[in-house]
Amino acid sequence: MPRHIDTLQTPCVLIDLDRAEANLKRAQDYADAHGVRLRPHIKTHKLPLFAKRQLELGAIGITCQKLGEAEVMADAGIEDIFLPYNLVAPEKLARLKDLAKRVTLAVTADSAYVVDGYAETFADSAGAPLEVLVECDTGAGRCGVQTPDDAVVLAKHIASKPGLVFDGLMTYPPAGGTADVRAWLQEASDKLTAAGLPPKTISTGGTPDIWRAHETPIATEYRPGTYIYFDRSLVARDVCTVDDCALHVLVTVVSRPTADRAIIDAGSKALTSDLLGLNGYGQVVGYPDAVIYGMSEEHGNIDFSASAKKPEIGERLLILPNHACPVSNLYDHVHLVSGDHVVETVAVAARGRVD
Amino acid sequence: MPRHIDTLQTPCVLIDLDRAEANLKRAQDYADAHGVRLRPHIKTHKLPLFAKRQLELGAIGITCQKLGEAEVMADAGIEDIFLPYNLVAPEKLARLKDLAKRVTLAVTADSAYVVDGYAETFADSAGAPLEVLVECDTGAGRCGVQTPDDAVVLAKHIASKPGLVFDGLMTYPPAGGTADVRAWLQEASDKLTAAGLPPKTISTGGTPDIWRAHETPIATEYRPGTYIYFDRSLVARDVCTVDDCALHVLVTVVSRPTADRAIIDAGSKALTSDLLGLNGYGQVVGYPDAVIYGMSEEHGNIDFSASAKKPEIGERLLILPNHACPVSNLYDHVHLVSGDHVVETVAVAARGRVD
Repeated sequence: MPRHIDTLQTPCVLIDLDRAEANLKRAQDYADAHGVRLRPHIKTHKLPLFAKRQLELGAIGITCQKLGEAEVMADAGIEDIFLPYNLVAPEKLARLKDLAKRVTLAVTADSAYVVDGYAETFADSAGAPLEVLVECDTGAGRCGVQTPDDAVVLAKHIASKPGLVFDGLMTYPPAGGTADVRAWLQEASDKLTAAGLPPKTISTGGTPDIWRAHETPIATEYRPGTYIYFDRSLVARDVCTVDDCALHVLVTVVSRPTADRAIIDAGSKALTSDLLGLNGYGQVVGYPDAVIYGMSEEHGNIDFSASAKKPEIGERLLILPNHACPVSNLYDHVHLVSGDHVVETVAVAARGRVD
Repeated sequence: MPRHIDTLQTPCVLIDLDRAEANLKRAQDYADAHGVRLRPHIKTHKLPLFAKRQLELGAIGITCQKLGEAEVMADAGIEDIFLPYNLVAPEKLARLKDLAKRVTLAVTADSAYVVDGYAETFADSAGAPLEVLVECDTGAGRCGVQTPDDAVVLAKHIASKPGLVFDGLMTYPPAGGTADVRAWLQEASDKLTAAGLPPKTISTGGTPDIWRAHETPIATEYRPGTYIYFDRSLVARDVCTVDDCALHVLVTVVSRPTADRAIIDAGSKALTSDLLGLNGYGQVVGYPDAVIYGMSEEHGNIDFSASAKKPEIGERLLILPNHACPVSNLYDHVHLVSGDHVVETVAVAARGRVD
């Protein structure tokens, strides 16, 4: 008999396998219908089994944000990895070179400094050059060259290096910025083509605008991450419903110090302190009016004053986190469940791969 | 030759052994001078080696917030553990009973429900009863009975159970609330004594008011945690100076997309998103005017507009986190350093012990 979730010790992470599978299929079906190629970001689940499932369903490869994550996925047999990160320092570049021998690999750069590091590392790899994309800041205000003209300059720099090949453009788009992103990428693509360096790959992504991916037809790849689990922040953005959300934290009420206050055994060490602009540190399933107003490391403070029904000490609650991805990073293991039963408990293999 | 920190891959945690030792000694010297007994909270370091050092210097035992942390410390040979947490559910109570066979153990309760769980579990342990303290809400608004009279009622309930012994009172005090805490505990103690249940132990604590511990002479134990490393939040409270801070995250500038913006390879997965009311997600050492204004999982966004000097791509920076404790929880390993050299790299043994 599979184990019932009532026997699990809290706090713990439950992944609803049926919902996760439905989310993966729905996104892949959408992508297939619109000719969008998915390259899912594994940061959300950090699990080789889901990376493999994403590939089985039709993803063209995966995306990892850190070298350590990519190494875990390569160890698990994943063969095509995009690492959209500026990698610097000799020790990391040596790891990158090792990884490039094992998998089909592409990276990004947004400066000549980063390109030069790749070029030096792969100087003797002209037969198997490293694919480098130019990271573009299309409005998110993080990394990336600032203008399409800067993208052309950097693309030429990449193309001038024997061990490197210019592969195209990559951006982490601002949520809701589809039109601006499209215009930016179009201009850069046109200028690159005019310069004799037409981009082979144009990579964009993000779950917030996943259902609008087809509105950026110039992109050749889309990198959603959170869509496998979704979360409260994406419910708030109308990207999904609460019934689509596949990751919850199972917690226990350990104290009811006042008529309105409940304390759960899950704090920032179990749910993170990510607010993402939302009210409260997560949503209590079945108690829509409850507010998780405070977090310390090991306690969550919930205000049930607006709830007619209030939980008893010992009652278990499901919490929908604001942000699923960093929650995965806190746990050594997660429970894969179907209904109320545990199908499998798996190690979060790429957890804590900070570098 | 010990390894130079310049060879470490980033992001990573550096613990300055000399500062940590000085912090531990200073607190123990203060405690000794005032007759305060320290029972340090290991949540900050999560390392058996520092728990043992705290005991060597004179601590009377340690404090763990979760059963899993206590189990790690017991495995490492620690023999006296206080677990000030309401433990519920049969699986956890069974673990608690196992732990009680291995170490001198005390727990807390703030409700009859929790006491009854302990009582049932330890019903056959009258020869070696479980010590239970009543958790008191003296103003922090988390767990705890609400009034001294409630403390007496619960103490009587504990004392009525064959497998349990009422040991005293425990509170997690509000920062800066020393006078109110003292009055609350005094009233409860007087009422307990009048009821024939004088508290043997009165436990309070917290690093924010560590240098005022002697102002609560009624307390028999003090449970500071963060004082081993300190952090930016405690600098802001004038509990320590920046030169006392022993935990830093070593990061690398991976992008300088604009004249004022720098992106580091450390985001919320490396520094947490804890703000604790501060401006920015940490302090850049050597750049007092820089503001870490944004965090995504793998990137930190820093505004250097107010800094005359700005770092180059590839430059390494030390970040003083807002809150040291949850940072320890993110890393599988930390580097213990002396000056610029790594003395030892150790596994964070009690990391991720969520339950």
